[in-house]
Amino acid sequence: MREPSLLQDLIDSLRCLPGVGPKSAQRMAFHLLERDRAGGERLALALDKAMARIGRCRRCRTLSEHDVCHLCRRTDRDASFLCVVENPSDVMVLEQATDYRGFYFVLGGRLSPLDGIGPEELGIDQLRERLAEQTVSELILATTTTVEGEATAHYIRGLADEYDCHVTRIAHGVPLGGELEYVDSGTLAHAFAGRRQLF
Amino acid sequence: MREPSLLQDLIDSLRCLPGVGPKSAQRMAFHLLERDRAGGERLALALDKAMARIGRCRRCRTLSEHDVCHLCRRTDRDASFLCVVENPSDVMVLEQATDYRGFYFVLGGRLSPLDGIGPEELGIDQLRERLAEQTVSELILATTTTVEGEATAHYIRGLADEYDCHVTRIAHGVPLGGELEYVDSGTLAHAFAGRRQLF
Repeated sequence: MREPSLLQDLIDSLRCLPGVGPKSAQRMAFHLLERDRAGGERLALALDKAMARIGRCRRCRTLSEHDVCHLCRRTDRDASFLCVVENPSDVMVLEQATDYRGFYFVLGGRLSPLDGIGPEELGIDQLRERLAEQTVSELILATTTTVEGEATAHYIRGLADEYDCHVTRIAHGVPLGGELEYVDSGTLAHAFAGRRQLF
Repeated sequence: MREPSLLQDLIDSLRCLPGVGPKSAQRMAFHLLERDRAGGERLALALDKAMARIGRCRRCRTLSEHDVCHLCRRTDRDASFLCVVENPSDVMVLEQATDYRGFYFVLGGRLSPLDGIGPEELGIDQLRERLAEQTVSELILATTTTVEGEATAHYIRGLADEYDCHVTRIAHGVPLGGELEYVDSGTLAHAFAGRRQLF
């Protein structure tokens, strides 16, 4: 019924963005066309460049346009800490929320043999090389608490043990300001079992 | 603090989309880079083409990549109806929701002398020419009920009267399925005053 058009194509293309349904895509397309053509042009260019030129950091596997990302190139950070995360976005949120001054290693997923994701896919060899450098004294696990996340954490813990590296894990529990009645039972049970001495 | 990068540029550029804040922009950028590069490339191309080539229809002033839009070129629609709307997006939503088979005229805004938006900016001359063709027998007003929208409707009504054109306005009232207690008082008062005989 509808004629194919550049407008329809733009609306359809906007649907590739997460959380954008047909209504939002329509609203976005009209907003750009009617009120912000410069923004639309800038976005087109940014997308084009990012898709073509952003690859993975050779050292930490995060997304980067350089062979080695700007974080790994920093000399003012503490190489004795290595934080292992699942995704590049985790690096960004940790950088924004914490004052962590060590380095990162991005797995790019979780161990999931059924989906064909084994140690190789997660760059475990690279992580091993990193630990073999003997500069890391504390490996901080920031993987998720899903079954696969736990298996991944367990696997990496074994690896770190081989290199006599101290392993810690970020705390899981009730979010700050979270009311107990709104916290899911798994988190609550975990927080209760993991209670600590109050000083 | 943050190094300028293609990734940061992409995140910033995504913020030009309506309803997209820093968190969503970040999520969208990572989604495209990690999971849907093809979608990102397609979006870049669609944006680029749309921004460069979509202009306004010479006849109805809606957004179109052609000199005259595909709706105005249709010969199977009823030229005796002309629906006047404020924005190109209104044409799309009316087309999707109704079985209206007439034509449209897009004002591109509302009369607002303080903001320098007068009859000229709304293409009233073009609307006048359209009415002068004497094919329109019913002009349907689908402008908003804001103060400026009302002023615009009043102005166009005067214009249509000059050409002995019948003017109607889309009904305003309680939305279908809307519970009275959640409807704003202005709408409720309007719906109450505009009550009709039940047959």
